[in-house]
Amino acid sequence: MKSYWIWNWGDWEVFHTNLVNSRREQYGMDYPPFWKMYDVDRNVTFFAEKEIAADGELKMYLNGKGYIKIDGIMYPDRKMIKVKKGKHSFQIHLMNLKGLPSAYIESEVIGTDGEWFTLDSMGKRVQVGFDERYTAPESDPEKFPFSYETVFPVSAENRNGGVLYDFGKELFGFLYVENVDPKCKIHISYGESREEALDTDFSVVREDVFGKSAYRLRQRAFRYIFITGSEKARLLAELEYQKIENIGSFRCDNEDINKIWDMCAYTLKLNMREVLTEAVKRDRWLWGGDAYQAFRFIKYLCADKETTRRSLIGLRSKEPFCEHINTITDYSLFWVIGLLEYYENYGDADFIRAIYPRAVTLMNFCKEREDENGFIRARSGDWIFIDWSDIDKTGALCAEQMLYIAANKAMCEICGILGKDKTEYSEKAVKLTESVNDFFWNSEKGAYIDSFESGKNNVTRHANIFAILYDIADKKQRGEIVKHVLYNDGITKITTPYFKGYELDAMGKIGDTDYIYDMITSYWKGMLDLGATTVWEEYNPEISGAAHYAMYGDKYQKSLCHAWGASPIYLLGRYFLGVYGTDRGYKAFKVCPTLGRFKFIEGAVPVRDGKVYVYLSAKRLCVRSDVEGGVLLWKGKEYKLPCGESVEFNL
Amino acid sequence: MKSYWIWNWGDWEVFHTNLVNSRREQYGMDYPPFWKMYDVDRNVTFFAEKEIAADGELKMYLNGKGYIKIDGIMYPDRKMIKVKKGKHSFQIHLMNLKGLPSAYIESEVIGTDGEWFTLDSMGKRVQVGFDERYTAPESDPEKFPFSYETVFPVSAENRNGGVLYDFGKELFGFLYVENVDPKCKIHISYGESREEALDTDFSVVREDVFGKSAYRLRQRAFRYIFITGSEKARLLAELEYQKIENIGSFRCDNEDINKIWDMCAYTLKLNMREVLTEAVKRDRWLWGGDAYQAFRFIKYLCADKETTRRSLIGLRSKEPFCEHINTITDYSLFWVIGLLEYYENYGDADFIRAIYPRAVTLMNFCKEREDENGFIRARSGDWIFIDWSDIDKTGALCAEQMLYIAANKAMCEICGILGKDKTEYSEKAVKLTESVNDFFWNSEKGAYIDSFESGKNNVTRHANIFAILYDIADKKQRGEIVKHVLYNDGITKITTPYFKGYELDAMGKIGDTDYIYDMITSYWKGMLDLGATTVWEEYNPEISGAAHYAMYGDKYQKSLCHAWGASPIYLLGRYFLGVYGTDRGYKAFKVCPTLGRFKFIEGAVPVRDGKVYVYLSAKRLCVRSDVEGGVLLWKGKEYKLPCGESVEFNL
Repeated sequence: MKSYWIWNWGDWEVFHTNLVNSRREQYGMDYPPFWKMYDVDRNVTFFAEKEIAADGELKMYLNGKGYIKIDGIMYPDRKMIKVKKGKHSFQIHLMNLKGLPSAYIESEVIGTDGEWFTLDSMGKRVQVGFDERYTAPESDPEKFPFSYETVFPVSAENRNGGVLYDFGKELFGFLYVENVDPKCKIHISYGESREEALDTDFSVVREDVFGKSAYRLRQRAFRYIFITGSEKARLLAELEYQKIENIGSFRCDNEDINKIWDMCAYTLKLNMREVLTEAVKRDRWLWGGDAYQAFRFIKYLCADKETTRRSLIGLRSKEPFCEHINTITDYSLFWVIGLLEYYENYGDADFIRAIYPRAVTLMNFCKEREDENGFIRARSGDWIFIDWSDIDKTGALCAEQMLYIAANKAMCEICGILGKDKTEYSEKAVKLTESVNDFFWNSEKGAYIDSFESGKNNVTRHANIFAILYDIADKKQRGEIVKHVLYNDGITKITTPYFKGYELDAMGKIGDTDYIYDMITSYWKGMLDLGATTVWEEYNPEISGAAHYAMYGDKYQKSLCHAWGASPIYLLGRYFLGVYGTDRGYKAFKVCPTLGRFKFIEGAVPVRDGKVYVYLSAKRLCVRSDVEGGVLLWKGKEYKLPCGESVEFNL
Repeated sequence: MKSYWIWNWGDWEVFHTNLVNSRREQYGMDYPPFWKMYDVDRNVTFFAEKEIAADGELKMYLNGKGYIKIDGIMYPDRKMIKVKKGKHSFQIHLMNLKGLPSAYIESEVIGTDGEWFTLDSMGKRVQVGFDERYTAPESDPEKFPFSYETVFPVSAENRNGGVLYDFGKELFGFLYVENVDPKCKIHISYGESREEALDTDFSVVREDVFGKSAYRLRQRAFRYIFITGSEKARLLAELEYQKIENIGSFRCDNEDINKIWDMCAYTLKLNMREVLTEAVKRDRWLWGGDAYQAFRFIKYLCADKETTRRSLIGLRSKEPFCEHINTITDYSLFWVIGLLEYYENYGDADFIRAIYPRAVTLMNFCKEREDENGFIRARSGDWIFIDWSDIDKTGALCAEQMLYIAANKAMCEICGILGKDKTEYSEKAVKLTESVNDFFWNSEKGAYIDSFESGKNNVTRHANIFAILYDIADKKQRGEIVKHVLYNDGITKITTPYFKGYELDAMGKIGDTDYIYDMITSYWKGMLDLGATTVWEEYNPEISGAAHYAMYGDKYQKSLCHAWGASPIYLLGRYFLGVYGTDRGYKAFKVCPTLGRFKFIEGAVPVRDGKVYVYLSAKRLCVRSDVEGGVLLWKGKEYKLPCGESVEFNL
């Protein structure tokens, strides 16, 4: 009978998130996260009441130690147990002090599956967690089911008394160094850039090995490898990745944009691991804000609900919530907003129901951080991030209040989905919007200011972009913001692909697709021209050379593979192919294509378990959806999209 | 320089408590605890600011992975690092996903010690934890520093097709089975009793081994071993124990009582492990109520503050407190009362200060369980234990309210020690006392009833004993209770040594030392006469034979080595030798000896870092204290006890 390894709901995700977050290294040292890591429950009990169709046998496997109780009688693991036809009650009691407590039953007549449950502290049933890919006794839930593939360097050259290998593009996996003399002390410098690999004093990831004729090194990200100590070494890399099909696609007449789309897709894929990581070379940590945006990119690239869901659990982790996600105020708020977007994208109410209590404790934690005006503020240990930009962060920050409004609105929706009382959140959202307008709206400047407490009346793009994205500015304000902020060159430019994503989303929202086109063909193109194979953490067109690789005061600390920069996937799918959901889980969706500066665009956007294909040129429009529920919007008219049939217009 | 392994305060204790609680086995199966096990923090940062006296070097060792930052610069572990004379700031960042994150610095100029701190969620400094016994790089904080000793069986006899070995008394350690044929399938049955070892179908602890010529089996408790499958096996046991000197002692003219004192001391010692365990054969778990009483016995036997302190931490474990200790309401309350008694016994205000926040969250949890009358009640998942006895547990239970009053009073004292506001607790204690008298005091019966909701007006000893012990009954009520409950044979007798402890403490308190004497020489003597080498979990004089070993519906589930039965150590020291503290940490103490039915008594009670010796017969009294602060009470007069000098009276 079909059976899965089962665990406490959410704990498999927490377990793997911890592994991911524990692998950062820097200059040969391990570098633990600075936020609190929660762990899985150490002892668990799984319950089931099952009707067994025929007499049979079962054998239980445990990752941990414990026993199974059938109708009140204890039996050990790994022994064949007879069970009679009829109704039985099962309890698996299990503990594991070092790993993930999990259990599996092998039998013709009963399985461990979604009918098993645990009991929460109120005695309420909670469905166990399981994953479709752990279905055999020998499956190991502590091992993430990655795919593997071997690749070789594309070139090698002797340099600086060593050999520099180039794998052609950034990759992630295990480096093998073979065919070396065990007596040789070998130094390996990893580089996302050629310069980094060659700079043995400053390359962020490096290792010295000795004593063997072949090495399999830790999983790491790199494009270049520089080796000293052995000229005849044979190198290869075993890539480690999730095999996930790209359902979304995009092609157009502009080859640069095609390359940028591919680069963004590749960047995103490299970071879509156990959870959505960031900076595959450097920290490879799970970051709340980065993930929030990447969830949208994932939706448009491959609609990989699972990586998104795992990341949402991993970010929020366990109780008590006594520190912001990654210690960052905005990241906690994005998590709540992202939870609603997850529902809107995938329609998964079961997940929302299961994680809802953790959303409530997060919001309660935020409430404790409100000041006398109801504004959320930093308390000791909180990090107000928003962006790497020159924002006036004195006192209550406008951009945070925008997110706090959006989070309260998201909680309203979530309560609505679950049939829970939303009064607290709706009242808060209304009151907070009023207060934000009272304290932060500057009529003279036609914009929201960063801080009212400093008296500087500084305006940055950030809060104003959020005001548009989360529908906080009213129509009049929106017009002012567009004029005085978005199109105002006097306002400091955004330099992170992260915030470019929000900015361009706002531009799409106000209908300026040309702005998006221009930014992709300049800002992203700038990285491409500098030889990027993946999108960078930050890009400043005004600097040059190896200075591009520096950040945080270090020569090569900048991540050259940052998922947060992959927004073109979303922007091109959302605003040019024009596909977006209008009911939960894309039950209904619209297609509203825009050609803009393109000669033609062609591509697909994932929708539910299918996709919608769009072709648009000056002469022809063709839309084909392989799922129900689509509506084409074209020149002010609506056309229902019949499932599997093309709708075509000669223009 | 003197240096210790350091860890997050309390985590070493939690780590070892989890190990202890994870070792229960039954009928060949591992048996996890049914309460929530919290784990240590997975990532930690240790801080220090130190003035270094001279240029020098240091090397850091980690149990886990991470780095040290000195004046902002990162260095790896296990590498020599130079440090200059002068003031420096140190940070050790460290994580360990499977064990106890801990660090050690080896250096002539700086050490890891009590000057290091962590930061709590409010940014407040918390001293790190460390233990005097981990002072070298190779010390392993995950390994508890036990002592070991080899012992051999005292006899062996062929029985039932196997060999029965007797080690002469209950012991705890690793059994070695040597000199056997690897082809032999060997079955080993452990027994606290001879009957249990021989009953291979029902012995609680057992193991089947095969394939080796010698085995070292898991650490277990046993007196008898029955082996089938190899007649020529050589057996020995490697005892595992804490080397703790008995400072307290007791000798008298009654040899039975001398033997009982020894048996109690031995029972207690067998259970004084990483933490205070209970039932060394069976569960060997840390139980709150059992430990609470045992803490007093420990105080009078060896004043081992450390085992007590570790147990208090292990019981309370980490946040959030979302379940009673061992799920038992009374055990949570005893923990708070025990915390104060720990302070009264050892005067360790630092510990009280460190654990205080966890006491507050425990009390808050209790508060959430109050009903409209302010009585603490069971909510889903709570276990109202009190005793294995026929108590009417309908609705709010009187005995629990007694403990709740005592816990609130203890919190008052604790707040007083720390200079914190105690209003909440003092008001609660007063109000609750009134309500208890209103609802539970039955003037007709002259006693507190178990439950007012059932209408049965059932009286048991339990609540009434607590009312005396915790000074809840007023003088008049106390008189009534003594008459109508304590000396009333119509009230169900206590059958657990656990509650006998409370009962006899109450008897001591009302001055009836003869009752204590009679009970020790009948109840405890009963076990002794049945061949006990350690005190049992329960003893009912009215049954006979192997029926004594049955409990929980199983033939041998009763623990024959239960620390909760060691109260004679306390009772003899407290009420006959007559020693008790009158100021925190026995800064001041009194000695008020009582001969009672004895011809002579002689013994010692630990006081601070010394002890007080007492000899009393009809002819002579001699008291000698080797610490300051003692006062002898004799025939209504007080005599100061000069340090190190005997005070003698010929009577």
